[in-house]
Amino acid sequence: MKVLVTGAAGMLGHRFCRRLAQTGAIAGKRVESLAMIDVIEPPPVPDASFKIHSVACDLSEPQVAKQVMADRPDVILHAAAIVSGEAEADFDKGYRVNVTGTRYLFEAVREAAYMPRLIFTSSIAVFGAPFPEVIGEEFFAAPLTSYGAQKAIGELLLSDYTRRGFFDGIGIRLPTICVRPGKPNMAASGFFSNIIREPLNGQEAVLPVPDTVRHWFASPDSAVGFFFHAAEIDGSLVGPRRNLSMPGVSATVSEMIESLGRCAGAERVKLIRRQPDPVIMRMVEGWPRNLDASRASSLGFEAEKSFDAIICAHIQDELRN
Amino acid sequence: MKVLVTGAAGMLGHRFCRRLAQTGAIAGKRVESLAMIDVIEPPPVPDASFKIHSVACDLSEPQVAKQVMADRPDVILHAAAIVSGEAEADFDKGYRVNVTGTRYLFEAVREAAYMPRLIFTSSIAVFGAPFPEVIGEEFFAAPLTSYGAQKAIGELLLSDYTRRGFFDGIGIRLPTICVRPGKPNMAASGFFSNIIREPLNGQEAVLPVPDTVRHWFASPDSAVGFFFHAAEIDGSLVGPRRNLSMPGVSATVSEMIESLGRCAGAERVKLIRRQPDPVIMRMVEGWPRNLDASRASSLGFEAEKSFDAIICAHIQDELRN
Repeated sequence: MKVLVTGAAGMLGHRFCRRLAQTGAIAGKRVESLAMIDVIEPPPVPDASFKIHSVACDLSEPQVAKQVMADRPDVILHAAAIVSGEAEADFDKGYRVNVTGTRYLFEAVREAAYMPRLIFTSSIAVFGAPFPEVIGEEFFAAPLTSYGAQKAIGELLLSDYTRRGFFDGIGIRLPTICVRPGKPNMAASGFFSNIIREPLNGQEAVLPVPDTVRHWFASPDSAVGFFFHAAEIDGSLVGPRRNLSMPGVSATVSEMIESLGRCAGAERVKLIRRQPDPVIMRMVEGWPRNLDASRASSLGFEAEKSFDAIICAHIQDELRN
Repeated sequence: MKVLVTGAAGMLGHRFCRRLAQTGAIAGKRVESLAMIDVIEPPPVPDASFKIHSVACDLSEPQVAKQVMADRPDVILHAAAIVSGEAEADFDKGYRVNVTGTRYLFEAVREAAYMPRLIFTSSIAVFGAPFPEVIGEEFFAAPLTSYGAQKAIGELLLSDYTRRGFFDGIGIRLPTICVRPGKPNMAASGFFSNIIREPLNGQEAVLPVPDTVRHWFASPDSAVGFFFHAAEIDGSLVGPRRNLSMPGVSATVSEMIESLGRCAGAERVKLIRRQPDPVIMRMVEGWPRNLDASRASSLGFEAEKSFDAIICAHIQDELRN
């Protein structure tokens, strides 16, 4: 089995590749080769039993996708994207990478004329307020960010290309990934991770929104688990609606902080500094608080059941490294 | 006031231009000039009190949109599109015109850096079965045709460009337009018009679906009325959700035929020949039957209240010509 990962230098893309090196297989089939692409050369993946091609290239340039597809991978994880904060700051770049780049990739798969599994990383940012307390499976995409609009467009393309038989696509509508390891990125949702990760490291973190804000989370491990499961399941069970809201944990900032206190002690909680940011507050008001993910759950997708479990996953992760 | 109409050789685009020649104004402001563009040169519009530029050009070619926008029209009606049947038959052409062409136009408006009203013609084809008997205002777009996917993408772009302040967009989600005058086009929904128009002309018409099929209609006059109203209303009343399901009449084929009998006599009804077409039946199964259009209604958009009124509108129309 041949695997292609776009955005392989990114946090989730690279994590998927590392896990692949550990498992060496998808759905019981041995991985022969892995192509890792990103705009910067993806860092090496240790201990892989298969061949790895690591390439720096930009999918939003014409012809690149065609070259990338020359190897006809059986599984494609399309995780390359401009994140929410940057897509809002740079309108052209967001559309170029998230829409045009995605279309180029989908077209290249179509031209290659076979039937790979294509996993598209979408986001709960496709939803925009006002919405019900729990967003249902048939609630509409009325995004309030360019990133959300671009992901919603990707979802529509994914469904249509799949319906037409150009590939076997599954869209993974990710919760906000928390706790993100390493440095903050330009995602506007980054503070949700910062207020857990930095105090755990003994560092101060800024909380730009009120404690009452409720949001929807899953760990990086769960996200990688979603991708593996999406690579393995029987596509015919998914039906024509190819985009799935993934399961997650609905928690308020206040519940997150209580959880931090339980896991790491009250002293760590004091490292959270409240500094309201009206721009971030306005964006966060338009973000989902809770989702019905029963379709994905019934297909076997699984996430943490509590925010404590999310913090636990992060601590174990840090200990491993 | 300057007006631009794309797809001005099409049935609705040209009808809007003819109505504009009659009224000479939008929202009480005198029209100075009208640019009519289409891939074929739009037919002349008689009796206009303003200057008309009629141009054959293809918006899906780079740079064309920029030239078209040189005049900085105050109102833009973007009615150019590949219709459903053709977009399904020719995947590339559908995406090129309906998505790439639309993006070029929106980008050209953005580059011109002012704030025109832009009216986008969308369609109930953005919805795909299964859906509730009445599709609510927040029901999701899960189209089952490429045309529907392309229109849903246009809606997302319209909302995002409007949110970013690049133009003041309103998306008009049209019911199936019935009775279409003239020759059938490649829209898969064409038979809904044929079974009324052809018998009224003493001609036989083919009905490819069962009498029990229910669908959602408005007359061409109502559609043009929607566009005028969209050109005139206060955009701030619309809010961030810029795409509106238009009001219409929900009727079964059987109710349509009864209506034809009432308006034109039982002999005309006999001209309808039942000839089931599995391909069209399969497409029609995925089409909406009834919609909640209360947002549009509360903004003052109006359609016929019965199918009799739709047939009446057609008969008056034919008498006028």
